[in-house]
Amino acid sequence: MKKNKVKVTFLPQNETVKVEKGTTLLEASAKAGAYINSICGGDRICGRCRLIVKKGDVNTYPTTLLKREEIKKGYVLACQTKVIGDVVVEIPPESRVEGKILIDKDAQRFRALYAPMKEQVFFKYEPLVQKIYLKLPPSSLQDNISDHLRLYRSIKRQKKVAIMQTGLKVIRALPYILRNNDWKITATLGTRGGTVEIIQVEKGNATAKNFAVAIDVGTSTVVAHLVDLNNFETIDAEATYNSQMIYGEEVTRRIIYAELKGEHKLREAIVDDINNLITTLVSRNNIRLSDLMAIVCAGNTTMIHFLLELNPSYIRKEPYIPVCTFPPPIRAAEVGIKINPRGLLYSLPSIASWVGADTTAGILATGLYQANELTMLIDVGTNGEIVIGDKDWMVCCSASAGPAFEGSGVRNGMRAAEGAIERVKISEEGEIQYTTIGKGKPKGICGSGLVDTVAELFKAGFINRSGRLNPKINSKVRDINGELEFLLVPSSQTATKDEIVINRADIENLLRAKAAIFAGIKVLTKILSIEFSDIKRIYLAGGFGNYLNKENAITLGLIPDVEREKVQFVGNTAILGAKMALLSNDAFDTAYWISKNITYYDLITYPDYMDEFMSAKFLPHTDINEFPTVMEKIKRAV
Amino acid sequence: MKKNKVKVTFLPQNETVKVEKGTTLLEASAKAGAYINSICGGDRICGRCRLIVKKGDVNTYPTTLLKREEIKKGYVLACQTKVIGDVVVEIPPESRVEGKILIDKDAQRFRALYAPMKEQVFFKYEPLVQKIYLKLPPSSLQDNISDHLRLYRSIKRQKKVAIMQTGLKVIRALPYILRNNDWKITATLGTRGGTVEIIQVEKGNATAKNFAVAIDVGTSTVVAHLVDLNNFETIDAEATYNSQMIYGEEVTRRIIYAELKGEHKLREAIVDDINNLITTLVSRNNIRLSDLMAIVCAGNTTMIHFLLELNPSYIRKEPYIPVCTFPPPIRAAEVGIKINPRGLLYSLPSIASWVGADTTAGILATGLYQANELTMLIDVGTNGEIVIGDKDWMVCCSASAGPAFEGSGVRNGMRAAEGAIERVKISEEGEIQYTTIGKGKPKGICGSGLVDTVAELFKAGFINRSGRLNPKINSKVRDINGELEFLLVPSSQTATKDEIVINRADIENLLRAKAAIFAGIKVLTKILSIEFSDIKRIYLAGGFGNYLNKENAITLGLIPDVEREKVQFVGNTAILGAKMALLSNDAFDTAYWISKNITYYDLITYPDYMDEFMSAKFLPHTDINEFPTVMEKIKRAV
Repeated sequence: MKKNKVKVTFLPQNETVKVEKGTTLLEASAKAGAYINSICGGDRICGRCRLIVKKGDVNTYPTTLLKREEIKKGYVLACQTKVIGDVVVEIPPESRVEGKILIDKDAQRFRALYAPMKEQVFFKYEPLVQKIYLKLPPSSLQDNISDHLRLYRSIKRQKKVAIMQTGLKVIRALPYILRNNDWKITATLGTRGGTVEIIQVEKGNATAKNFAVAIDVGTSTVVAHLVDLNNFETIDAEATYNSQMIYGEEVTRRIIYAELKGEHKLREAIVDDINNLITTLVSRNNIRLSDLMAIVCAGNTTMIHFLLELNPSYIRKEPYIPVCTFPPPIRAAEVGIKINPRGLLYSLPSIASWVGADTTAGILATGLYQANELTMLIDVGTNGEIVIGDKDWMVCCSASAGPAFEGSGVRNGMRAAEGAIERVKISEEGEIQYTTIGKGKPKGICGSGLVDTVAELFKAGFINRSGRLNPKINSKVRDINGELEFLLVPSSQTATKDEIVINRADIENLLRAKAAIFAGIKVLTKILSIEFSDIKRIYLAGGFGNYLNKENAITLGLIPDVEREKVQFVGNTAILGAKMALLSNDAFDTAYWISKNITYYDLITYPDYMDEFMSAKFLPHTDINEFPTVMEKIKRAV
Repeated sequence: MKKNKVKVTFLPQNETVKVEKGTTLLEASAKAGAYINSICGGDRICGRCRLIVKKGDVNTYPTTLLKREEIKKGYVLACQTKVIGDVVVEIPPESRVEGKILIDKDAQRFRALYAPMKEQVFFKYEPLVQKIYLKLPPSSLQDNISDHLRLYRSIKRQKKVAIMQTGLKVIRALPYILRNNDWKITATLGTRGGTVEIIQVEKGNATAKNFAVAIDVGTSTVVAHLVDLNNFETIDAEATYNSQMIYGEEVTRRIIYAELKGEHKLREAIVDDINNLITTLVSRNNIRLSDLMAIVCAGNTTMIHFLLELNPSYIRKEPYIPVCTFPPPIRAAEVGIKINPRGLLYSLPSIASWVGADTTAGILATGLYQANELTMLIDVGTNGEIVIGDKDWMVCCSASAGPAFEGSGVRNGMRAAEGAIERVKISEEGEIQYTTIGKGKPKGICGSGLVDTVAELFKAGFINRSGRLNPKINSKVRDINGELEFLLVPSSQTATKDEIVINRADIENLLRAKAAIFAGIKVLTKILSIEFSDIKRIYLAGGFGNYLNKENAITLGLIPDVEREKVQFVGNTAILGAKMALLSNDAFDTAYWISKNITYYDLITYPDYMDEFMSAKFLPHTDINEFPTVMEKIKRAV
């Protein structure tokens, strides 16, 4: 009996295998040992298994993952293409497995940001997406309800669900999966705006594999945590730079770019970043993309707009209106995110145009919304968000600080990445001690290093209260063409062989940034008619990496001069809050409650703000009575 | 200043026009007077505006509406393709507007089935899909909630909605449509399983155009009614044969075909039929496809399975389990139905594998579920469904009658279409009077004509109680090779020039069909321990067209011998019920209530059924006491 076999040859390897007709090119490639890039493992999601058919005919499905010109050139997706006769195919370079490094190595350091979730969860553990194992009673003449109702009945016996929804694809799969698996299946249930959707059904007990990703979509940095929804542990974390940076460092610039060139470019950039992060996380942990059922995103309002390809234009124009602050859960695939094709993308709710889901997440993570004492949360970034409140009320505002705290707009500034100076001590003699991220030679200085440097220079008397360098003190202060600068690291000691200096403009940038935030704090307390002393706890959050010297933050006048034990640096609360929402429907609902129950003040409508800003541009402040303990330390500079 | 114009030439007309770069081929074709088939008017739904690019370059979007081979040949969709330079395109025959006749002319007769909806609606008028006009307050610094929440707030001020859902596409459109239209828009709201979805937003007041289609997906005939949701009037109706007929006349045969060749072929067939019906209805009434926001389908359980491409296999195998009896609303586009791309497809709920949504619709339309007196509904078709009940309880069963009542399996049988004999009177002398549908020369005999013929032959003494023709009576009874037959119409009087006869086998087929239904009625009454006299009203429904002689139905023994005023022929209650559900959320919910609150008896589990069937195969029945008034009329035949 003649077998129905055909030959498949893979180029450039020139490897030929015999396979049955109807075999996919992806299966054939594995048999030939000619491995092809396929993140999704044949689920038709990733579009990476591109091949070029050079000779012979194939049967392939219509796809939108290939461009028209590519189809004309013979491109096919290996997983969607069946061989029907002898065929020669070429594996183009981008589909070969040797691949590329997807993630900037520096970003590894963000792995240290593992969240102490187990202590943080105050909520009932019930993730947004759950898998439940069901042993259904087989159908019989006596019990002859439809497969669909039988599934509902079984789920309702295990779980209270008011409104259950199911897509046609899942219903279509039921008769096969039930009868081929002895009526034992696993249903994945996803919370969807007051209803529960049966996202998928799998054979047998598949509850062991249920993963999700929490993302902090930062303006500069995108952080992803991979979470096992069964034991609510963070398995791994990864970060990368937001590649929207090429369209502008500042949020407003990116909005303008989107207005000119279309929002899709911004979406594509951030979606690529997220897909790369996810790819790295799943590869490193041997997890299938199809076992990722959910992704939860926090980020400022504009970042969420970009992610969902919503028009961000009215965010920047008076009266500053976002399209959407409560985005509904959608299929992640709808914006191009590659997890399980039926997996859901949840965006945490934003508060207003300039106070985003990252702040909501921060309030959730710090528990500010249920604090017994008056608490303040300051999230320092390109915009500084300030929240004051307790369990009874909350207010917030946003201050445009500029990128200095993220190491940008500063001559030798850099992001909190390998080689960045993150801690600095300067003695009165000008002796400098510093620590870099990764302990190697310095490449530049990041936000926390900058805070230290300026505060230390001030304490050591190198700069005066207006931030002006004093040339008489020490040879480290140099006059270059009439501009004064302070030599932090000589060229002989840097990784780049360029010296690292801080100049008048750098100091001014930082002072403007801290003044913007402090003025925001000040105006907010004025609106509330409270004193700093009424605030019993201050959480300082932001993308500073693992370190921020709170003493120096006070010396600088970034935050009020309060008892030091009231101040706590809490790191990246956006990702923490996103993870809490992912792991608990209660927490997710609380995020909604928070964003609905907080009052937003737009500083632009408060004329006091500009006065406060001008007053705050000094070290630590024009009004020295605001900073009694700082002034006590500073003798010479006054 | 040089204009940015390019030349577009259309073949075969060889018509050239100059248009701006970026113009679509569809727009250019209109300018050239070279009209292209485009049902959707450029909404990228219909895929009919196919062109072949012969020369020059174009910009076109990826699409799955074209096959790979077609793309290679240069096919594009005119509405999705922009000209970027001089170009020559050919309009292939299928895209030319002169078109084809989509609907069988005979089907026109179904237009007479206009439903008297205004009398039938007992429900609050609130269609499944509503358009509401909203004048939103413009955003301001004081009222700065997001566009999305602003829309929700405005809707909630007009309408009570518990859970509102919105897709990303609608949210994306909001900032543009609100600001370009002075914050005046129309929102389309669709009921979706306990929630309300904002299906689309349109500029200004677009409430005037809100249409929907109700469909009866019959095994043989598909009927569509076009409804104006604003005044709940049926604008037009159309019918066509179910083209699944090529895969088998009987439901079971089609299931077997689906098992062998895949369900998609069955779905494609019925979806094509529905699309053709819709196309005809919208063209005839100058309505845009995009103004059709919903389609509601009734049909037997298997037909709904085919429509949704659900595996029907277990419907025919013990223990006879459907995949789904309560299909969720889906986007009509998901199964290929071409209305507004965001329009919804609602399927009415079925009761069991062999009692479908058409029966649910029938119960809804007749009001049986709220009857004060015991009522029976008999829906005669290839399967006969029998319902007995009142406002307190309902039971139902299904009897496999075979296709005789639909004019199939009978030598000169035909469907209730133009040229079918639908009424017959036969005198004792064998003088025959008949009426055809459309009043023309007869082509064959349909179900109602067959009922009349056999009953009249029986009353006139041409056949005895076992259905045997008596050769001695009249020359119209002929012996052909030992088989007796009755000449109904000589060849000289028929449209086909063939004579129309009825033979022993035809009569036996009809007797088997009526026996199956009567036995079902009988067993159901036995299960309930009631007498026929307890039933106060009998509704006789089915696809008989406009006519069924109830006296002859009793003479035949199809329905019990009860007082004639108790019996009412009610026509196609499936389409009536579907329309009621479409026009009223209350009615739709009632359909769910009906299908949940009715008890299904599977006749296969009742051994009595076969005995009853055998007894009912006589005219009118073995037990003449069952039919006292019939026996009084019949003297000779006993």
